Amino acid sequence: MTAAKRLGKQTVKLQNPPSMVATASIVGKKEGQGPLKEYFDQILDDGLWGESSWEKAESKILRETVSKAITKANKALGDINYIFAGDLLSQCIGSSFGIRELEIPFFGVYGACSTMAESLSLAAMCVDGGFADYVVAATSSHFCSAERQFRFPLEYGGQRPPTAQWTVTGSGAVVLSNQGSGPYITHITTGKIVDLGIKDANNMGAAMAPAAADTIYAHFEDTGFIPDDYDLIITGDLAEIGKNITEDILQKNGCNVSRQFTDCGLKIFDNKKQDTHAGGSGCGCSASVLAGYLYHELTQGSLNQILFISTGALLSTTSAQQGESIPGIAHAVTIQNTLG
Amino acid sequence: MTAAKRLGKQTVKLQNPPSMVATASIVGKKEGQGPLKEYFDQILDDGLWGESSWEKAESKILRETVSKAITKANKALGDINYIFAGDLLSQCIGSSFGIRELEIPFFGVYGACSTMAESLSLAAMCVDGGFADYVVAATSSHFCSAERQFRFPLEYGGQRPPTAQWTVTGSGAVVLSNQGSGPYITHITTGKIVDLGIKDANNMGAAMAPAAADTIYAHFEDTGFIPDDYDLIITGDLAEIGKNITEDILQKNGCNVSRQFTDCGLKIFDNKKQDTHAGGSGCGCSASVLAGYLYHELTQGSLNQILFISTGALLSTTSAQQGESIPGIAHAVTIQNTLG
Repeated sequence: MTAAKRLGKQTVKLQNPPSMVATASIVGKKEGQGPLKEYFDQILDDGLWGESSWEKAESKILRETVSKAITKANKALGDINYIFAGDLLSQCIGSSFGIRELEIPFFGVYGACSTMAESLSLAAMCVDGGFADYVVAATSSHFCSAERQFRFPLEYGGQRPPTAQWTVTGSGAVVLSNQGSGPYITHITTGKIVDLGIKDANNMGAAMAPAAADTIYAHFEDTGFIPDDYDLIITGDLAEIGKNITEDILQKNGCNVSRQFTDCGLKIFDNKKQDTHAGGSGCGCSASVLAGYLYHELTQGSLNQILFISTGALLSTTSAQQGESIPGIAHAVTIQNTLG
Repeated sequence: MTAAKRLGKQTVKLQNPPSMVATASIVGKKEGQGPLKEYFDQILDDGLWGESSWEKAESKILRETVSKAITKANKALGDINYIFAGDLLSQCIGSSFGIRELEIPFFGVYGACSTMAESLSLAAMCVDGGFADYVVAATSSHFCSAERQFRFPLEYGGQRPPTAQWTVTGSGAVVLSNQGSGPYITHITTGKIVDLGIKDANNMGAAMAPAAADTIYAHFEDTGFIPDDYDLIITGDLAEIGKNITEDILQKNGCNVSRQFTDCGLKIFDNKKQDTHAGGSGCGCSASVLAGYLYHELTQGSLNQILFISTGALLSTTSAQQGESIPGIAHAVTIQNTLG
C-alpha cells in the first residue's frame, strides 16, 4: 500500500483508487418526466411518499436510496463502514433523520449543492487510505422542503425570475469499495471558498460560477490533464447562466472546455418544456445525475473519463437577510473506467 | 507507509498517527470567567467583537482562532492542505463566512456539537492516509446566535429550565501534521446515530447520552482498551444530566468509567456561580476545552492518554416543530502523548 500523492495545491491522486461498485437514485415526478428519466432507479408519483411533511419525505428518499445502493452492491447495512451524507436543510435534518435507522457510522457533511462531490471525495479518501472496505456517499434535496427553507412556503405562490433554478427532488447514493472493477475515483480536487460579491439568491448559478471555474482550473494546473483528456466535464448545478459564466472565466484563463462541458442542472430537465427556468439545482441534482445517467454511461463504456464537479452556494436566509454575499465552493473528482 | 487498521465495527487505529502541532482557542466573556480561563488564548470583552451581528461575530471568532492556531504552528495559510470545519448555524454560515478569506481547501462538516471530534477524526485520517501534511480541524458556537437559531432571540427573555444548557461562545482549532512530537491522534471511533425518543430540546444532555454511551462502549469493545488505560474520558457537552445518564448506561453494561469520566460542559463553567444551569454546550464547548485546557495538560504531561468524545444533538427547529425526537451522535478520538 502506497500513500496518496499530492499534486499541486488542491489535488490528490489516489494510489488505491476505489471502485464505484453500485449506485442508486430515486427522484420525484418532475425529474421522472425529464430527459434522464430512463436512468433513475425509481420515480415517485407523490412528493410526500406517504409521509406527513416534505422534510420527512426527503429523509425517506435518502434512506431508501442508500438502502437500494447497498442492496445493489450485494451488501448488508452492517458491511458498510461509513456513510458520508448531507443536505440543504438547516442542521442537515434530511440526512440525520434519513439514516437514523441504518446504524452505520456516520460523518455528516455540509457543502450545500457541492455535497455529492464532497461526500464522494471523503468516502474515496477513506477507502484509498485503508480506513474502510465499503463506504457510502449520498445526498438529497427536495423541491418543497428547499422552497420552505430558503424562499417561501409553496402556498405563498412567489414568482420566480428567469435566473432562478429548480431544486431537484431526489437522492443519489454511491457505494465505494476497495474491491470491484471500476469505474474508479482517481483524483480529488478540493475547492476553496470563492466569493465575488453576488447577493441575488435567485441567481445562484452566477454566485457559484467563479468557484466552479477556480476548482476546474486548479484541477488542470495540479494534474497536468487537459480538457481533451476528458469525455465529459460536468458541473453540479450551475444551470444555464452559471455554466456560461464558468465557461467564459475558463476561456479567459486560456482553458477551453467548450467541447465537453455541461451541467447536471441542464441535463436533468428540459427547461423549455418543463418551465424550470435556468435549470435544476439542489444536492440531489448532481447526486441523482451521477448515480443514474453518468454511472450508466460509464459502466456501458459510452464515457471513459469524466470530471464531476458539484457546486455549492453557502448562503442561509440569515446571511442573506444580513446583507452578506453568497460564497461559492466546488469540489471535483475524476472518474475513470480504467486505471492508466 | 502502512494502512490504517480497522478494529471492530467502528474504530480505526492509525498507523501514522498525526501530531497536534498547535491549537488555539478564543472564547467569550462568560467562558473567560469560568474555571478554565487561564487556558484560553484570548477572552473577548464583547460578544459582537466589533461586528454588526452575532453570526458575523461567530465567523470572526472562528477565523481568528484558525489563524492563531496556524501562526502558533509556525505555518502560513498556504501551508495548510485542508480545513475541516462546521458549526450549529443553519447552512453552517459560522464556518463558511469564517473561513471565506482563508483560501484553504475546505470540507464543511455537520455534526451539531459532535463537530469537533468529527472534524478531528477526518483531519487525522487525511494526514494518516497521506493526503495532507497539515490539516486544520475547527468549530465554533456563539450563545447569542444559537439562541436566535434554536430557541428565541435574546430580547424575548425566555425562561430556561434547570435541564437547559448554556451554549459556549467560542472556537477551538487544532493543527494536525505528519510532523511533530505529539500529542498524537491514535484511534478514531465513529458514532452511529442513536435516538431513544427524547423530544425535549431543553434537555439535550439526555438526548445525547445514549449516543455517547454507545460510542464509548464501542470504543472499548473495538480496541480492547479498558477505562483505566485512560487518564481522562471526556465527553463534549453532555453537561450534568447527560453525563450522569451516560455513566449509568455504561455501568449497566459492565463498563465503569466513574474514576476518569467528566464532561467539557461541566469543566468550562462553574454552574452554581455562573447560573449556567446543567452546563455548557455548543460546538465551541468541546473545541475550546480541547484546544485550551486539554492540550495544555497533555503537553505538560499531566495527562498522557485521553478519550475525547464530542456529542451532538441532530435536531432542527423544523424537526422539533414536526414532532420528531432528537437523534444523538458521538464521535471519539484517542489522544496519546507517546506512541506505544
